[in-house]
Amino acid sequence: MHERTIWTEGEQVYLIDQTLLPGERRVLEVHTVGEMWEAIRTLRVRGAPAIGIAAALGVWLGVRQVNEYETIPLHQAVENACRYLATARPTAVNLFWALDRIRGVVAAHPDAGIRQLKALLLKEAQRMLDEDNEVCLAIGRHGASLLQDGSRILTHCNAGGLATAQFGTALAPVYFAVEQERKKIAVIADETRPLLQGARLTAWELMRAGVDVTLICDNMAGSVMRRGMVDAVIVGTDRVAANGDVANKIGTYGVAVLARQHGIPFYVAAPLSSIDISIPSGDGIPIEERAEEEVTTLGGVRIAPEGVKVYNPAFDITPAELVTAFITEKGIIEPPFGESLQRLFEENAALQPQP
Amino acid sequence: MHERTIWTEGEQVYLIDQTLLPGERRVLEVHTVGEMWEAIRTLRVRGAPAIGIAAALGVWLGVRQVNEYETIPLHQAVENACRYLATARPTAVNLFWALDRIRGVVAAHPDAGIRQLKALLLKEAQRMLDEDNEVCLAIGRHGASLLQDGSRILTHCNAGGLATAQFGTALAPVYFAVEQERKKIAVIADETRPLLQGARLTAWELMRAGVDVTLICDNMAGSVMRRGMVDAVIVGTDRVAANGDVANKIGTYGVAVLARQHGIPFYVAAPLSSIDISIPSGDGIPIEERAEEEVTTLGGVRIAPEGVKVYNPAFDITPAELVTAFITEKGIIEPPFGESLQRLFEENAALQPQP
Repeated sequence: MHERTIWTEGEQVYLIDQTLLPGERRVLEVHTVGEMWEAIRTLRVRGAPAIGIAAALGVWLGVRQVNEYETIPLHQAVENACRYLATARPTAVNLFWALDRIRGVVAAHPDAGIRQLKALLLKEAQRMLDEDNEVCLAIGRHGASLLQDGSRILTHCNAGGLATAQFGTALAPVYFAVEQERKKIAVIADETRPLLQGARLTAWELMRAGVDVTLICDNMAGSVMRRGMVDAVIVGTDRVAANGDVANKIGTYGVAVLARQHGIPFYVAAPLSSIDISIPSGDGIPIEERAEEEVTTLGGVRIAPEGVKVYNPAFDITPAELVTAFITEKGIIEPPFGESLQRLFEENAALQPQP
Repeated sequence: MHERTIWTEGEQVYLIDQTLLPGERRVLEVHTVGEMWEAIRTLRVRGAPAIGIAAALGVWLGVRQVNEYETIPLHQAVENACRYLATARPTAVNLFWALDRIRGVVAAHPDAGIRQLKALLLKEAQRMLDEDNEVCLAIGRHGASLLQDGSRILTHCNAGGLATAQFGTALAPVYFAVEQERKKIAVIADETRPLLQGARLTAWELMRAGVDVTLICDNMAGSVMRRGMVDAVIVGTDRVAANGDVANKIGTYGVAVLARQHGIPFYVAAPLSSIDISIPSGDGIPIEERAEEEVTTLGGVRIAPEGVKVYNPAFDITPAELVTAFITEKGIIEPPFGESLQRLFEENAALQPQP
């Protein structure tokens, strides 16, 4: 029922090429770190948690050919692969978090042989994938407690199964409520220009899972809220700052302002790996600007005049005061977020490397 | 410099086919009332003021073949054409206003011969076209007083020259400020999904007029406001209710909420012909819902899964309390709008037929 987004079979690495959805579901075998960099860069694999897993597997692909006859030591090859993959996309903290975790494996085994270290790297990447499934299922369980039978959810972009290994973050509560609790849930999906992740991916995976979904253009969100068609908003995140400011797909901020205007709760599904306690506020989060062609063409069709100026930020910052609560794998986190997020990290310090 | 959108040469009626912009500028000669109905319905001609002119010319096209040997009286042929054209689009009040004005010509000349009445109908339609130019230029002059040298304006959809006979409503103040007052004005154009009037039309006509324009996706409006890149919003309208509620292109409401959130003035350029004093509030304005394919396909390219449910309202209602002021041909109209709009109509009662 739930598509796998990225996975391994033995030493083979596979992912669904999301640039071809919803027209074609093609499985891509990724052979090299260069191919993985390209897959992340061009959004064949996207979504903060999935990018983290892809990066970890990318490092392994980058070093698996290294043998004892190479002049370059394995730990140097790992570092090279990490630095290279870190340039693929700048906003998602999971990417850096995953690479730091891989570096930690190397650091923790200074005496390991090349063969052993390579096995440890693959194992660590696979463990991250398994953990992602556990985290998403826990987010689903906690988030479903916020949903009633009959709830109508609006979501922006795709923070579904296709943004993670399999189960999603923002959509995990919907799946849990529908499949485990037999609640009737309807989803309104913003199409999410320019790359239409909502139309192409969210609508696709919800339909495949048998969940009631209605597609709207982004600029209709205010209208459906004003008509009383939305009970809650749930979105994912690429990075949460220590004060609770949220970086997510461009347009999230507008949805949050509209939700507040209509008294609709605005929830952010945030695995601990997406929370960057080292950044005090959203002002410190770099915002990726992407190519003009994403806005001016669609499927090869030109939709704007030649030579027009374009502004195309891929993300925006939603200030913490517009967030009703975070849905994490450890439970629902409520304001004041400066304190509650700090406490969450203190209680779960063992879970992940601190920056 | 300013494209004509719809015009006559002798007894020929021409319009620019806006469905082909920005790729191709093709002039369409319209021969029959059926062709004009189709042109309005499929948005070859669009924008509330231009639709009114198109409808008036459409009636004339519908009756120009009628002669003294027909069994149907001319006034009946006029009424038939009016009723037919009224079904082309439901939201813009200008359409109904224009048809009522044409009916008024027939009523005012009960003894006119067929030949004379046909000439009067064409003359009335051409007068509406000339008046539209005067109205737009006056809106431009009044609206420019709200703009400073260096002002950065955000607009949604196209209420430019292409939405009127030639000079535009929401863009008229920009043109006036740039061309008559030599102010430096920059415009941010929302692309305006689903039909991309902002990307295809607003960007195109501003570039042709030499005005600095930057294209964004609709969901970036909040982000550019939060970054301090917008000094004022100016939009057009399809219908204003007596209390100041505004029907306009879907997404306008969201822009208005965001403008209020950021303390940015939100102006609505509204010719008197778009103000419907007979409707107490926006609740009474019918909202056109359009075909799913407008959302699920683009230029023939499928961008959403087959069979997905779609909600596609073409307009939304912005409540009067979010409007800073109306820019009319009679000046700037400020709150409280219930009173100021009523007074405007009392002062200008002679200008147009009252419903």
